[in-house]
Amino acid sequence: MSKGMPRAVVFVKNAEQVSDIVKRLNKEKVPYIARGAGTGLSGGATPFGGEVIISLVRMKKMLHIDLENRKAVVEPGYVNLKLTQSISDKGYYYAPDPSSQYACTIGGNVAENAGGAHCLKYGVTTNHILGLEVVLPSGEIIEISKDGIPDQPGYDLLGILTGSEGTLGIVTKIIVKVLKNPQAKKTVLAYYDDIQDASQAVSEIISAGIIPAALEMMDAIAIEGVESAAYPVGHPRDIAAFLLIEVDGIEAGIDDQINEILTVCKNNHVREVKVAKDEAERALWWANRKMGFGAMGAISPDYLVQDGVIPRTRLPEVLANIAAISAKYELRIANIFHAGDGNLHPLILFDATIPGESERASKAGSECLKACADAGGSITGEHGVGIEKSAEMRFIFSEQEMAAQTDIRAVFNPEDLLNPGKLFPTPGRCVEIRDKDLVPVKGT
Amino acid sequence: MSKGMPRAVVFVKNAEQVSDIVKRLNKEKVPYIARGAGTGLSGGATPFGGEVIISLVRMKKMLHIDLENRKAVVEPGYVNLKLTQSISDKGYYYAPDPSSQYACTIGGNVAENAGGAHCLKYGVTTNHILGLEVVLPSGEIIEISKDGIPDQPGYDLLGILTGSEGTLGIVTKIIVKVLKNPQAKKTVLAYYDDIQDASQAVSEIISAGIIPAALEMMDAIAIEGVESAAYPVGHPRDIAAFLLIEVDGIEAGIDDQINEILTVCKNNHVREVKVAKDEAERALWWANRKMGFGAMGAISPDYLVQDGVIPRTRLPEVLANIAAISAKYELRIANIFHAGDGNLHPLILFDATIPGESERASKAGSECLKACADAGGSITGEHGVGIEKSAEMRFIFSEQEMAAQTDIRAVFNPEDLLNPGKLFPTPGRCVEIRDKDLVPVKGT
Ligand SMILES: Cc1cc2nc3c(=O)[nH]c(=O)nc-3n(C[C@H](O)[C@H](O)[C@H](O)COP(=O)(O)OP(=O)(O)OC[C@H]3O[C@@H](n4cnc5c(N)ncnc54)[C@H](O)[C@@H]3O)c2cc1C
Ligand SMILES: Cc1cc2nc3c(=O)[nH]c(=O)nc-3n(C[C@H](O)[C@H](O)[C@H](O)COP(=O)(O)OP(=O)(O)OC[C@H]3O[C@@H](n4cnc5c(N)ncnc54)[C@H](O)[C@@H]3O)c2cc1C
Repeated sequence: MSKGMPRAVVFVKNAEQVSDIVKRLNKEKVPYIARGAGTGLSGGATPFGGEVIISLVRMKKMLHIDLENRKAVVEPGYVNLKLTQSISDKGYYYAPDPSSQYACTIGGNVAENAGGAHCLKYGVTTNHILGLEVVLPSGEIIEISKDGIPDQPGYDLLGILTGSEGTLGIVTKIIVKVLKNPQAKKTVLAYYDDIQDASQAVSEIISAGIIPAALEMMDAIAIEGVESAAYPVGHPRDIAAFLLIEVDGIEAGIDDQINEILTVCKNNHVREVKVAKDEAERALWWANRKMGFGAMGAISPDYLVQDGVIPRTRLPEVLANIAAISAKYELRIANIFHAGDGNLHPLILFDATIPGESERASKAGSECLKACADAGGSITGEHGVGIEKSAEMRFIFSEQEMAAQTDIRAVFNPEDLLNPGKLFPTPGRCVEIRDKDLVPVKGT
Repeated sequence: MSKGMPRAVVFVKNAEQVSDIVKRLNKEKVPYIARGAGTGLSGGATPFGGEVIISLVRMKKMLHIDLENRKAVVEPGYVNLKLTQSISDKGYYYAPDPSSQYACTIGGNVAENAGGAHCLKYGVTTNHILGLEVVLPSGEIIEISKDGIPDQPGYDLLGILTGSEGTLGIVTKIIVKVLKNPQAKKTVLAYYDDIQDASQAVSEIISAGIIPAALEMMDAIAIEGVESAAYPVGHPRDIAAFLLIEVDGIEAGIDDQINEILTVCKNNHVREVKVAKDEAERALWWANRKMGFGAMGAISPDYLVQDGVIPRTRLPEVLANIAAISAKYELRIANIFHAGDGNLHPLILFDATIPGESERASKAGSECLKACADAGGSITGEHGVGIEKSAEMRFIFSEQEMAAQTDIRAVFNPEDLLNPGKLFPTPGRCVEIRDKDLVPVKGT
């Protein structure tokens, strides 16, 4: 059994099978990991070596849909985008829209508390989960908030399971909220010569009391990437950044909001700003934006995605720091991010075949996170901690806070067989293995 | 020391004092309870006898306000309504608005995960908390999400503390979200001769894709109460129910929504429907609604407030069941509720001086909750479990689920000195004491 290889991969069909396997693995003291589509960006589903992978991809059915009460019940391997696709003709959708939504599973989304471009207005996964069925590491199957009634009494187990990165239990059923399609949507694209102007426009839009459905930014290097990839829009190549801004809601209010946004953009020296003329144009702009990460493969042999959060008002300063880090390490850094909620994704471009570049990329990535933390931010916005940042948890949690967290893990997972070494530094395990095993995301 | 009396009440000024006292009480093995304004409706801050009450009411300062990043930092004894009052001139407000907001503390709101009329659109307290400082039962002071950056990595400690009813720690500082005032607000009052028509209108408004800021219902007995109390509106006395519906948002969209609501009301045989003509009229309608519970004192010597949740579509059926329970126990039951999110408040009117009435009221209340649970709902929407419903937790949680919950409590509160016997049935403590000590809410 080679290092980093799982002992076996088991494809399960239902909660009872998951429970059976977990009980057997408990007896044998064999560690195991739940896995969805494997799109996770922090190594949460990656084995250290010797774990059994319990794959949920064959549990991919929609079990029940109740549009009147706005909820759907799905199996964990159900692919995120399919949900919206299957109810859009009836005028409904599922809000959390990670860029990986064509592939990632709702079970994986729950584990990572995934976000997406439209989470600025609608909230991340945790705001859309009404109930869960979970196989605990004991093998027992519990239902949390069975009927999908929110704000249940007792401690918020839904909340604690959501975002727990597959370390507290294996999710086997999910009740999610579905939303009614907004009456109207309008999308603005604004090109800037100066990234500080773009940042200022972001702040002013939010200060104006507008809550856009999405407010995304991409800088020049990111634009170079997406324009070389599958869905080029024809963005000018000599701009510093663009903003992609969407508002939705009641038909009658939309134009006023759009006009206000156009005014803010113009007041902040926009070079060119336009409103999508139809749904096709809007869809192209979004396809282009959502290609962001993957598109880096078109302009760099390798890249490392980082994921930090900062208070929105610190955007200009943190972007300047990232530029300085890029200069220091002589590596290009693209920035693609959810500007509206201050969730940055610096993408560090490098070539792993050049000696020393991987290490430099890794250091640059770490400094980007430090820049976020120093600005009063945090080390992950939506991609999770996994193995990649497990050690960095100490930067943001005190000893006492870490103890509360690891004690909670022990309540659910006393033997530490479920996804060991992830999320929190397990003394003598994670930190030790981490340096040897960390592999940057390959460009695809 | 008589039964039900605290051993002492300590008024604390800061987290260090709380920590000191907690450490001393730990040494002496004396149980203790945090207390805010004491408006809680499930006995959470009520001593069984012999506990030390740690009162937070003197920790009532606003510590910091950062409107640009939309957050405020307050001490736990800060009164809910004061926050909105202190920032409204700058165009901001704090969204969770329990009817007790003139008195209850934000610390108590966090403990109870309080809701309010405007939580339909804006979410309950947990959706507005960005960070907490907490004194753990060990006496240690921890900060959760210190800078108020949401969606921190690790397990969702913010979520688990919020709504934990003072059983996991004592909150000593709170970072809350503040929101920008909506550009416009409009409020509709609709009178119905038939409560089923009113219920149907509620469903249709939501189905139309409108998300009102508030959607409240009051039935005839409730109307009798509020019209006899401090802020009579002049509601007709012979109607079956009224709906109070508010929409807010961008100026331009409001009228369309109001027109759609008026149409739905008319399609469902409304007797009379009107839009508040100015802010003064709107304020009166709300003052009248928010008097709801207190107003019962004007028409009944005693009353018992219940608090259940149901799926919105089951409203007509559950209301019919509550009417049957009222007939069975020969007690009048008023209904005041957050209709939009299916949160019912049956108010059972009785006279404790008439032998047997208290018992009948208590049974009727319990049957109302059962009716909610049977309709796929839950036993508390926003008032919490406290001592009042601690035994009923078994109706909605399995043994395994209860164990996960009590194990979490043990992580934070291993000695069970912080608010013992509340929220979960403590074997041999809570259930035993409960029957002797339960006192219905007195009409005021
Ligand atoms: C191109 C690209 C773009 C992306 N964009 C975004 C984005 O915009 N926003 C965002 O938030 N993320 C994004 N991601 C990250 C990733 O897609 C999400 O984290 C997603 O939620 C992972 O889902 P998955 O099914 O692939 O999970 P996996 O990668 O299979 O697993 C991730 C973690 O979840 C656990 N897990 C999986 N299924 C279960 C289950 N049923 N029960 C318990 N634990 C489980 C695993 O153990 C692991 O720890 C992106 C990734 C890529 C490759
Ligand atoms: C007329 C009336 C109307 C009401 N309307 C609503 C409503 O619309 N919506 C709603 O949700 N509730 C409502 N309530 C219930 C009540 O006001 C809320 O539950 C409120 O949040 C309690 O706050 P408090 O400061 O009074 O807390 P208290 O009653 O003092 O305490 C309540 C619980 O919180 C704990 N606690 C208090 N402070 C802290 C702290 N700093 N740290 C840890 N634990 C603490 C206590 O131990 C106790 O368990 C109403 C009550 C009344 C009397």
